[in-house]
Amino acid sequence: MEKVDLAAEAATLDEFWSQRVVAGANGNLFKVAKGIGSTTWHTHADQEETFLVLAGQLTIQLRTGDVDLGPGDLFVVPRGVEHCPLAREEARFLLVGPDVTSTAAGGKPAWSAAAGRPPEA
Amino acid sequence: MEKVDLAAEAATLDEFWSQRVVAGANGNLFKVAKGIGSTTWHTHADQEETFLVLAGQLTIQLRTGDVDLGPGDLFVVPRGVEHCPLAREEARFLLVGPDVTSTAAGGKPAWSAAAGRPPEA
Repeated sequence: MEKVDLAAEAATLDEFWSQRVVAGANGNLFKVAKGIGSTTWHTHADQEETFLVLAGQLTIQLRTGDVDLGPGDLFVVPRGVEHCPLAREEARFLLVGPDVTSTAAGGKPAWSAAAGRPPEA
Repeated sequence: MEKVDLAAEAATLDEFWSQRVVAGANGNLFKVAKGIGSTTWHTHADQEETFLVLAGQLTIQLRTGDVDLGPGDLFVVPRGVEHCPLAREEARFLLVGPDVTSTAAGGKPAWSAAAGRPPEA
């Protein structure tokens, strides 16, 4: 039973779009991540994905339009809804859901491995 | 699919230690609440209770000691662990769990009904 300083945890992440589990409760994981650029478009057919921005600005691109999130904003992507998170500058956020979804199928871009940076636009 | 500004939601709460559901995902509810003084000592035998402080300072009193939380700190009270949240000044926080637990059995003090204030110490 230890508290978690979410900002401090997120500050030590090496890799973009890679989730670190910091706690678990009631079948869900609490995960910190940082983003820059965007993931690929993807869908989680079996679970909702909840975003809570800690620092920076994160845009959840949906096929129906963008949802712009700042610090303290929470957004639930319903299961089955295609989405593509975008951070024009580095953003740090909390994710809540039953699984770690930062996989290729979960939208993690190839460039983000080994602490990579997004390709120049 | 609407985003939730957690600070704005918490700012409009009337009653202390009364949870407002702002979102749901994967069998869990996201709830905002505000506290001052303390709840009563209580236990949730069937679920973990996750606290994430949005503003102010919240102390989770446990029989084994206090856990002091500030903004951005997350803490999971395991199921079956007796606890008594305490806010020496007003605190606002997010709760995550499967049920609304701001009931008498869940520690809500009698004075908090109808936007009441805690009795003088």
